[in-house]
Amino acid sequence: MKLTGQTWEFDTRPVLIGSAAVVGPDEGQGPLSPDFDYVYDNLEINEKTWEKAERRLLEQAAQLAVIKSGLDKEQIQFYVGGDLMNQIISSTFSARKLGVPYLGVFGACSTSMESLAISALMVDTGAAERVMAGTGSHNCTAEKQFRYPTEYGSQKPPTAQYTVTGAGCGVIAKGGQGQTGPRIARATIGRIMDLGVKDPFNMGAAMAPAAADTIAAHFRDTGLSPDYYDLIVTGDLASVGLPIAQELLEKEGYQMDETKFGDCGLMIYNREKQKAVLAGGSGCGCSAAVTYGHLVKRMLQRELHKVLVVATGSLHSPLSVQQGESIPCIAHAVALEMED
Amino acid sequence: MKLTGQTWEFDTRPVLIGSAAVVGPDEGQGPLSPDFDYVYDNLEINEKTWEKAERRLLEQAAQLAVIKSGLDKEQIQFYVGGDLMNQIISSTFSARKLGVPYLGVFGACSTSMESLAISALMVDTGAAERVMAGTGSHNCTAEKQFRYPTEYGSQKPPTAQYTVTGAGCGVIAKGGQGQTGPRIARATIGRIMDLGVKDPFNMGAAMAPAAADTIAAHFRDTGLSPDYYDLIVTGDLASVGLPIAQELLEKEGYQMDETKFGDCGLMIYNREKQKAVLAGGSGCGCSAAVTYGHLVKRMLQRELHKVLVVATGSLHSPLSVQQGESIPCIAHAVALEMED
Repeated sequence: MKLTGQTWEFDTRPVLIGSAAVVGPDEGQGPLSPDFDYVYDNLEINEKTWEKAERRLLEQAAQLAVIKSGLDKEQIQFYVGGDLMNQIISSTFSARKLGVPYLGVFGACSTSMESLAISALMVDTGAAERVMAGTGSHNCTAEKQFRYPTEYGSQKPPTAQYTVTGAGCGVIAKGGQGQTGPRIARATIGRIMDLGVKDPFNMGAAMAPAAADTIAAHFRDTGLSPDYYDLIVTGDLASVGLPIAQELLEKEGYQMDETKFGDCGLMIYNREKQKAVLAGGSGCGCSAAVTYGHLVKRMLQRELHKVLVVATGSLHSPLSVQQGESIPCIAHAVALEMED
Repeated sequence: MKLTGQTWEFDTRPVLIGSAAVVGPDEGQGPLSPDFDYVYDNLEINEKTWEKAERRLLEQAAQLAVIKSGLDKEQIQFYVGGDLMNQIISSTFSARKLGVPYLGVFGACSTSMESLAISALMVDTGAAERVMAGTGSHNCTAEKQFRYPTEYGSQKPPTAQYTVTGAGCGVIAKGGQGQTGPRIARATIGRIMDLGVKDPFNMGAAMAPAAADTIAAHFRDTGLSPDYYDLIVTGDLASVGLPIAQELLEKEGYQMDETKFGDCGLMIYNREKQKAVLAGGSGCGCSAAVTYGHLVKRMLQRELHKVLVVATGSLHSPLSVQQGESIPCIAHAVALEMED
C-alpha cells in the first residue's frame, strides 16, 4: 500500500476472483446483454414491491459472485456494500442474507467503486483475505424515492438519465494463489465537487467536474497518462456529462482519445432504439453491472487489459434539493489490470 | 494490521490526535455537559431548517477537531463520515466544506465506530497519514424522517429512545511523532443480527443481540476478557437494551461487571430529570459526542486507560418497517487505549 496524493497503489494487487451482474428487462435489451449473468424479463423481478425487487437483484448478484469465485459463502469474511435507497436497505438486507461482517457505504452511483476500493484496501493490507463488494439499483425505487413513482407518468427533459435496474458484485481476494481475474492495481478517492448545479434532471452536467477532478488527480498521483489505459469509463455521465468531462480534462492538459473514453450509462442501452433512457443510464447498478458483468468478461477474454472505472455520484437528496441546495458530486476511480 | 476472525489488531496503534463534540441544549443539561466543546442553547442551532442545523453541528465538530489536533485543514487527507439522513446529506455537505477526499459510510448509529475503524485501518496500513472521522444527528431531523415531525407532538412508549442533537469528530494520525491522545488498538466489525423485532419504538431490544454478538466476537478474536477494559460502552442500547445485552453475554460465558459496562444513551442524559428522553439517548451523534467529547477527555486525564466503544446501529428505514420487515441490526467495536 502506497499513498500518493489521493491515490492508493496496491502492492499485492488483489484479484477479482469472481463477479456477477444481474439486470432487468431494459438492460437485457441493451448491447451488453450477453455479458450479464442473469436477465429478468419483468421489471418486478418476481417480487411484490420495487424495494424487494432491488434487494433480490443484489442478493442474486452476490450469490452468483460467490459461486463463480469457487468459494463457499462462509469463506467471505466481509461485505462492503451500499445503494441509493434511504438508509441503504437493499445492501443491509443482502448483508443479512450473506451473514458476514458488514461495512455499509454510501456514495450514490459512485458506491460501486467506493466499495471496490475499500475492499481492495482491506485485502491488500491484510485486513481481510476475501471480501465481497457490491451494489445495485432499480429504476422504480429510484424514481419513487428521488422523483415521482413511475406509475404517475411524469415527463422529463432530455438531459435526464434513466436509472438502471441491475446489481453487480465482486469477490476480491489475495493474489498469488493461482487465481485468475483482473487485479486491482490502484484506486483514487475523490473529493466533493459542487459547481452550483441545482437541477436533478441534469446530473451528468453536475457530476462531470467530479469525474474530471478525480481522473486528473489519478494521472497526477500516478504519473500515468490517459493512453496507459485501454479504456477509461465514467459511470454515469451519459450523453450530457461525458463531453463536459472531456472538455474539462483537455483544459487540464489531458487529451482523452474518444475511442478509449466511454461511459457506463452510454454503454448499457441502445439509445437509438431505447428512447426512454433519454441521456443514458445511471444509478448504482449501472457502473456495477457494466464493470462486474461486461468489463470483467472483456478482460478475462483478453480483449481489454487495463481499465480505469471512474464511478460518479450525485450526493443530493430530494430534501436537500427542496431546501435549495446545489448538488455535491464525487467520483472514485479504480484501475483493473489483467496480467498475462 | 493483523486480522483474527472479524477483528483488526492495529500494529502501529494510530493516535486520536484531536477530537471534538458539539451538542444541543438537551445534551447541555445532561451530566456530560462539561466535556462537550460547544453547547448550543437552542435546538435550531441558529439555522432555518433542522437539516441545516444537523449539518452545522457536524461542520463545527470537524472544525474544532482540526484545531485541537494542531493541524491545518489542508493536512487532513481523507474524511470518513456518515449520518442517519437519507443519502447522508449532513456528512456530504460537511465533506464539501472540508474539501478533502471523502468516503461516505452508513451504519445508522454504528456509523461513529464504523468511520473510526475504517479511518484507523487507513492510517495503520499507510493508506493515509491523517484522517478525519465523524458523524452527528439531530433530534428533529431524525423524528421527522423516521417518525413524525416533533411539532406534531406524537406520543411514544417508554421503550422509545430520544435522538441526540450532537456531533463528534476525531482526527486520526500515525503514532510516534510526539502526539498525545488515545491510541486505536483494535476494531471488531459486526455482522447483521436480526431476531425478528419489528418495533422501531424498541430499538434497544432490537440492537442488543448485535451488541452482544460483536462484544463476544471481540473477546473470542483477541483472547481478552471483559476485565481487560476499564470501561465497555455500548451506543445506544439505553435502559431496555443494555440489560438484554448483559444477559446475552452472560449466557455466552462473559460476566460483565456492571460498574464497567455502560451505554452512551444512558450516560448522556439525566433520565430522572429529563423525562422526555424515555429509555435514553440514541442517534449517530450520541456515541460520537460521548466518545469524542466525554471518553477522550477522561482518557487524556488518565481517569480511563482502556475503553471499548461498541456502537450499535438499527439498519431499518421507515419504508422497510412499512413493508413489514423486521429490523436488521449491527454493532462495530473500537478499542481506545491511553499509553502512559
